[in-house]
Amino acid sequence: MINSPYLLFLGDAPDQLAIKVAQGIRDWRPESVVGQLRLPGCKADAGVPDMDLVAAREAGAKTLVIGVANRGGVISDSWKAELHTALEQGFDLASGLHSLLNDDADLVTTARAHDRQLFDVRVPSVDYPIANGKKRSGKRCLAVGTDCSVGKMYTSLAMDRVMQARGMKATFRATGQTGILITGDGVPLDAVVADFMAGAVEWLTPDNDPDHWDLIEGQGSLFHASFSGVSLALIHGGQPDALILSHEPTRTHMRGLPDYSLPSLELLRDTALPLARVVNPGCKVVGVSVNTKAMGEDEAMRYLEGVEARMDLPTVDPFRQGAERLVDALDAV
Amino acid sequence: MINSPYLLFLGDAPDQLAIKVAQGIRDWRPESVVGQLRLPGCKADAGVPDMDLVAAREAGAKTLVIGVANRGGVISDSWKAELHTALEQGFDLASGLHSLLNDDADLVTTARAHDRQLFDVRVPSVDYPIANGKKRSGKRCLAVGTDCSVGKMYTSLAMDRVMQARGMKATFRATGQTGILITGDGVPLDAVVADFMAGAVEWLTPDNDPDHWDLIEGQGSLFHASFSGVSLALIHGGQPDALILSHEPTRTHMRGLPDYSLPSLELLRDTALPLARVVNPGCKVVGVSVNTKAMGEDEAMRYLEGVEARMDLPTVDPFRQGAERLVDALDAV
Repeated sequence: MINSPYLLFLGDAPDQLAIKVAQGIRDWRPESVVGQLRLPGCKADAGVPDMDLVAAREAGAKTLVIGVANRGGVISDSWKAELHTALEQGFDLASGLHSLLNDDADLVTTARAHDRQLFDVRVPSVDYPIANGKKRSGKRCLAVGTDCSVGKMYTSLAMDRVMQARGMKATFRATGQTGILITGDGVPLDAVVADFMAGAVEWLTPDNDPDHWDLIEGQGSLFHASFSGVSLALIHGGQPDALILSHEPTRTHMRGLPDYSLPSLELLRDTALPLARVVNPGCKVVGVSVNTKAMGEDEAMRYLEGVEARMDLPTVDPFRQGAERLVDALDAV
Repeated sequence: MINSPYLLFLGDAPDQLAIKVAQGIRDWRPESVVGQLRLPGCKADAGVPDMDLVAAREAGAKTLVIGVANRGGVISDSWKAELHTALEQGFDLASGLHSLLNDDADLVTTARAHDRQLFDVRVPSVDYPIANGKKRSGKRCLAVGTDCSVGKMYTSLAMDRVMQARGMKATFRATGQTGILITGDGVPLDAVVADFMAGAVEWLTPDNDPDHWDLIEGQGSLFHASFSGVSLALIHGGQPDALILSHEPTRTHMRGLPDYSLPSLELLRDTALPLARVVNPGCKVVGVSVNTKAMGEDEAMRYLEGVEARMDLPTVDPFRQGAERLVDALDAV
């Protein structure tokens, strides 16, 4: 568990795209953020107060979160002085970069000297069990996609926000690097060893109150040749009561696979639901979440109405419209 | 690649069950075995000549393969003197045990001193790529099961033997520990990190002659809550042209999951085939392999005939009847 609140480290980010992780944290867990730390030359802004390390410590910050990614996902040399100073001043460090804080001998030495922790959220920190498939109490909702990166995490976070506002019992369960940095914990599922994938998801979504919902962050797609195994482990480990179908209608091929077209929402439904019912015979598809970012407002609304009529399911773009109708659908399960 | 031929190490095995790995190697790769090494108290016999290390070296043996498993899968203290002597005399060591040769500091020291290799086939030795889903030349056959441990490896090895005898181009592709020790190489798929599972299977089954068949060792089951993700990665990474359905008819529940019943062969077919067609639209289900070990001869024959009529597919127990009819079916693809 990463200690919050956070100071977001934007480094010398060349543009706004480079701070996607920081923006995700600011958008979804603003209460965990005291400010941002920018180095000279930084051209990005997460929209929170600029602070140096001393001011952030005074404001209560416990962890400096690397909210910036550069090409290659390495720890930039230009960041290192500040990272060492942060450890010396009592911050833990957290990172989702490909190159690991814990592989940097100098940072490890400084962290040890000051009794600080280095969190690499790409690396599993738990010995997960092998899944046992036993029925657990509480309810679970999983977003499954026609493709990777179609808005599954966003959908679950948006539903979580609505449920918290309504006073419902709900927990967003992160399964990817950005999600883990947003919530402070979770399972980096794509880095888990094959035999333990489903067990890691069971571990992440344990027994709970009968009226509690886990909102499980989806990964990959059953139709994505590279990552489908991860998606199926999520379905079988997650034991979902409710599935949300996620889609991006303007994509011309599967992400990273130019020879593969996307499945229809109907095919996704007819593939995912029987597989989910292997572990939870009561599972239902309750709604559709569409990422219409690449469409104009009218086009998007027409598209959503068309899908809703065709699929006979509440269909929304949670970014444009909020996730209220998806939560309503969940509430009826 | 593990150097052959092998000397099979049976240690102080208490019974025949404990040397399953040695028996698998002897059954399927007799040409790779010069003999067996038994310690005092050994109650098992792999049916090959007893040899000491010196005699086995003279007979050409290059690797001492640990063909025995004890409770917990550890390297027994009573074996260690012989393992050190083997390294000193020029043997490599290979093991599929849970505890690793490479984690035993003494063995590592001895191996280094004598320039010998320690092969732990449970541990991936390659940085596998992420799957790209590109169509590869050559053909591939994958056994998919209603459950784990229903005879998928046995089926593929039996088909390989028939194909070699017929002079067909075929390669058994191992994806599990025993299979790797039998063939000398392969991918220990259950130990591969999630993101790279399908890529590891692509790596294992590369472009080949148009009339060459890879016989891919199946793992798990799409219906097994603990391991289904591995099974789907095999389907999507393996890009099979042909599927063989594998089943064990007397099992009362999924292996290790008392609350789960087995799917029917029809449901397995209707689930696996559409998923396989995502990556290979021409994929076909060509036959059924049934493990009838727990049935009498008459009962087994009646069962096989019943399945054949019901499924309209060649249906055999390759152990009782050989795999000729499955290979015939493959030949027709």
